[in-house]
Amino acid sequence: MKTKRERTIYLEDTPREEALEQCFRMVNFHDTTEIVTTEKSVGRITAEPIYAHSSNPHFHASAMDGIAVRSRDTEEAHETNPLRLTEHDDFVYVDTGNLIPHGFDAVIMIEDVNEVKTGVLEIIAPALPWQRIRPIGEDITSGEMLLAQGHKIRPIDAGALLASTVKNVKVKRKPKVHIYPSGSELVPPNQPLQPGKLIEFNGTIFSELVKEWGGEPDLKPIVKDDPEKIREALETGVAEADVVIINAGSSAGSKDYTAHIIQELGEVITHGIATRPGKPVIIGKINETIVIGVPGYPVSAYFVMDWFVKPIIHRFLNIPLPQKDTLTVHAGRRIVSSMGSEDFIRVHIGYVDGKYIANPLTRSASVTMSLVKSDGVITIPAGQLGIEQGEKVEAELMKPRSEIQASILFSGSHDLSIDVLSSEMKKTDLLSKVTASHTGSMAGLLAIKRQETHVAGIHLLDPETNQYNLSYIKKFLLGMDLVLLPFLKRQQGMIVPRGNPLGLKVITDIAHTQAHYVNRQKGAGTRILFDHLLKQNGILPQEINGYEREMFTHLSVAAEVKMDEKAVGMGIYSAAKAMELDFVPIEEESYDLLMTKDFFMGTQGQLLLDTLKSEEFKRNVEQLGGYKVDETVTPLYV
Amino acid sequence: MKTKRERTIYLEDTPREEALEQCFRMVNFHDTTEIVTTEKSVGRITAEPIYAHSSNPHFHASAMDGIAVRSRDTEEAHETNPLRLTEHDDFVYVDTGNLIPHGFDAVIMIEDVNEVKTGVLEIIAPALPWQRIRPIGEDITSGEMLLAQGHKIRPIDAGALLASTVKNVKVKRKPKVHIYPSGSELVPPNQPLQPGKLIEFNGTIFSELVKEWGGEPDLKPIVKDDPEKIREALETGVAEADVVIINAGSSAGSKDYTAHIIQELGEVITHGIATRPGKPVIIGKINETIVIGVPGYPVSAYFVMDWFVKPIIHRFLNIPLPQKDTLTVHAGRRIVSSMGSEDFIRVHIGYVDGKYIANPLTRSASVTMSLVKSDGVITIPAGQLGIEQGEKVEAELMKPRSEIQASILFSGSHDLSIDVLSSEMKKTDLLSKVTASHTGSMAGLLAIKRQETHVAGIHLLDPETNQYNLSYIKKFLLGMDLVLLPFLKRQQGMIVPRGNPLGLKVITDIAHTQAHYVNRQKGAGTRILFDHLLKQNGILPQEINGYEREMFTHLSVAAEVKMDEKAVGMGIYSAAKAMELDFVPIEEESYDLLMTKDFFMGTQGQLLLDTLKSEEFKRNVEQLGGYKVDETVTPLYV
Repeated sequence: MKTKRERTIYLEDTPREEALEQCFRMVNFHDTTEIVTTEKSVGRITAEPIYAHSSNPHFHASAMDGIAVRSRDTEEAHETNPLRLTEHDDFVYVDTGNLIPHGFDAVIMIEDVNEVKTGVLEIIAPALPWQRIRPIGEDITSGEMLLAQGHKIRPIDAGALLASTVKNVKVKRKPKVHIYPSGSELVPPNQPLQPGKLIEFNGTIFSELVKEWGGEPDLKPIVKDDPEKIREALETGVAEADVVIINAGSSAGSKDYTAHIIQELGEVITHGIATRPGKPVIIGKINETIVIGVPGYPVSAYFVMDWFVKPIIHRFLNIPLPQKDTLTVHAGRRIVSSMGSEDFIRVHIGYVDGKYIANPLTRSASVTMSLVKSDGVITIPAGQLGIEQGEKVEAELMKPRSEIQASILFSGSHDLSIDVLSSEMKKTDLLSKVTASHTGSMAGLLAIKRQETHVAGIHLLDPETNQYNLSYIKKFLLGMDLVLLPFLKRQQGMIVPRGNPLGLKVITDIAHTQAHYVNRQKGAGTRILFDHLLKQNGILPQEINGYEREMFTHLSVAAEVKMDEKAVGMGIYSAAKAMELDFVPIEEESYDLLMTKDFFMGTQGQLLLDTLKSEEFKRNVEQLGGYKVDETVTPLYV
Repeated sequence: MKTKRERTIYLEDTPREEALEQCFRMVNFHDTTEIVTTEKSVGRITAEPIYAHSSNPHFHASAMDGIAVRSRDTEEAHETNPLRLTEHDDFVYVDTGNLIPHGFDAVIMIEDVNEVKTGVLEIIAPALPWQRIRPIGEDITSGEMLLAQGHKIRPIDAGALLASTVKNVKVKRKPKVHIYPSGSELVPPNQPLQPGKLIEFNGTIFSELVKEWGGEPDLKPIVKDDPEKIREALETGVAEADVVIINAGSSAGSKDYTAHIIQELGEVITHGIATRPGKPVIIGKINETIVIGVPGYPVSAYFVMDWFVKPIIHRFLNIPLPQKDTLTVHAGRRIVSSMGSEDFIRVHIGYVDGKYIANPLTRSASVTMSLVKSDGVITIPAGQLGIEQGEKVEAELMKPRSEIQASILFSGSHDLSIDVLSSEMKKTDLLSKVTASHTGSMAGLLAIKRQETHVAGIHLLDPETNQYNLSYIKKFLLGMDLVLLPFLKRQQGMIVPRGNPLGLKVITDIAHTQAHYVNRQKGAGTRILFDHLLKQNGILPQEINGYEREMFTHLSVAAEVKMDEKAVGMGIYSAAKAMELDFVPIEEESYDLLMTKDFFMGTQGQLLLDTLKSEEFKRNVEQLGGYKVDETVTPLYV
């Protein structure tokens, strides 16, 4: 039996940087080193300056295949006065790398001598002193400093170390970071899915990040939400590791034990920082080990790792944090923020008309894909209420600038074929990429108007003419030079559970049967179609059970339907097929691509056109089911 | 017995890009893939688009610890009208991540309910439909494209894959690159040094570069300069690898067999490119394996790897080459180049007075340290004769921009204490670094005049006054606001072999004994001192055996002395000590640091001053031997 427990912890609002400084002040970053062989030293950090053990070359070496001579003896040699040299007395043969015997001070290339007879040669030009000789220490002089301390060893550095017979290197020991996922609802990634059980995947992200940053991760088994188990984990962890991460349970709720236990075993330095997401973080220490309580939601967790674990690892290694690559972007729309917290907004960035336009992705901290898809992150400082549309701000990049610059911004209605388009274009141009925001047809149309996107995917039914798209363009985008590419005819219909348990046949059945309807957001073409159908059939929205519940993509609608025997949603056939659901066709609609003429005439526009026309693309799209790609894709200039 | 052999191969001058294009045209880059587990997929390249196997969450999950309710039931709840809910009938307890039981559609946080008695709760606010619920597919919807093909998997991507139960990923197979070092003079790095034997270290550099670029290297044992052994190696290599590298023997000399053998076994695509360094490269194919003959000198080798092996690996992986980080720099001095070849100049880059100044390092292809030390590389195109002093050019960076910007440019006389200074400063400021060019005292002085350096180390004796430095500054840098920091008194003397076999006591003994003198370059303070001593003692340069042979550092002089029982050189005590040689003191000289007042007053100047004054620094320098660090380091404004 569960009851309400007292909240005993109060979450602070410590500024992020201050929390880190507190940690740096209160923890003793012991300086530990280890010896590694030079062959295994690449990527490691030197713990002290490294000096050459020997010179390279360590003797005067011939730089060529040829003969070693005394330059003084050769001064008279000339084309008109060839000079004869006798082996052993006047010269010795040397190969590249051979030692120059004592007394000799120049090498003549084998190509520049003439053999008169065995052991006797002729030369026709004098040798300059030290010509074609690599003097001792030419590359490296014994005792010279090769690498400073705090240097990350690169392949070429390892080469120089070997060249000067430095076989072992004293490097910073990688800080040990033990990672404990916690939560009774979690199961390891390789177990079958069960309702009520969630896959633990943060631990893998953490491990890989720690590796990337130069630490040595150790991902431990999942710990149950049980104070005793958590205490046990922490005690084991701090005995061995430099940093212990406990994931989830870091907040101040009734089941968030971590902060209590850290306080009992050691000291909580900070609990709660003034950020969104990422607020419920714990920074503590037990003995000399740093303990970080990282929030459970993947986005919060990712940021907390970046803000704290990354600098802590760098501090252990005693190296500066690498600078992040940033880009000046213009906000594609207004982004609101609350006072008092730093806000971290994941954004899509597109290069439109010579400007980088950033549009926010979802701000939900539970959406891993918002990090996967983001091109960059914009930070809104705690003292600022938000960013106005068009305002210039700096974005930290999550993807290379070249990739962002080359990517085609797609906005508008969600369709599964857009992913196929992206893949196919990449086959022609490696750098090409389609960055899609599923905002709905109307939003896509308006993004074209505001020059925030390159391409909009739209399927907007005009109930008066029963035509798609054209009347909307004329109404909303008057005066712009645009191109509409006829793209797909696709099947819209009712996505229903397998076997269609409610036996739905026509739209009116949704109301009659009191089916659980799964709706789409306002401005989505599918929503406009559904509202039109309701009106046409004299049904009021109030008669539709679930009308107010809105989803943003066809696949989300299908996912909802899959969960509920009484559910139904409007959507495209391919989504029903992808989710192995049944489908009741209602209407064939036109899904077209809208873009400016300038974009269409450019390299990217033409690559897009070529891809749409290719047989392979058509075949791949039609395999999704319910599609017919336009035969000619003849551009319509509007 | 060796004789002259015929040159049978003619080296081409193919432009570098053309050589690569020819290779791309003539080789079939077979598309091979492999399956890896998601946990091991980070850093790998997706071979196809990756779709979600299941939704995350895969059920409607509670986002909080609390109670699941039917929102419709709670509409009346109000502070003035608390609503009673009975367990099972009206609500069920749920924890974060729990499944929302069928029929319920909202969660109320445990903190917002009041327990009246066991199984009966009161709420004082209605629940909105779907509040505190993570709907199915909130993060990832089954069937959605997670990653495009050709994507390098990051830690966060691996997390998303696991979250959607993608346990295995089809990725591009890493191309296999077999590396054969060749040369009869080479020995593996862990063997003791022997005269005439050179350490093979290119292979380790190549292996590590191949790893970094995404290939799978296999470093093979050294192959002798024997056509049969080379043929054997190539035949074994091409049977297994995608790329075979054979290092050295790639030129057109009498012992360069590689091109012949490739032509016999397959086809030489290019032999010789129009670059300096790097010209004698071979690109060929045997069956479907690419064979690259890489020149032996480490600098040539490094560039050839970067120009050919790197793009070839990327081509196998079907990903674009990453953009190199570049910086606009001003040439600190004139850099000459020959027509017809691209010239690759390794440079030091310093940030002086708001401009990045680039000064060339040695251009010798055998000097590994010129790559280790370089901050960037300037390319002079084939059709250009050079770069004028002050001219703006792009440099490809070898070190992070932040490191370049923070580093203190040091120029002038070589002294071992400068390395110690660099190390000590880094202890205070992690980013700090001293980038030293050993150009000699006079060159350092003039670099200050031309604003090409921050600090010059000088020890310039004025024979008339018998004073150091000041008169030179007044003569050459008139009108500048400068600061001279008194730094060291150091012992100059004769560096002689152990036991001083020639029994040298005073300078005149060098002439009398016909010792082999090792001189320093013109403009070096030590050279000025030596010339002054000769004059003082009435000795002519012609009387000094070896006067014309010039070395650029004290350590190089010492290295020469170590090789020859009859040698002697002027230099500092610490160099003799580092090389375990004997030393005959001649003079104590003043080695001071010169800089502009602006630099001195800035952060870097003050950090420098603080370091010079620190006890630890003094102790470390005096340990080198022959030094006395100035007690007060009182700046002298000149």
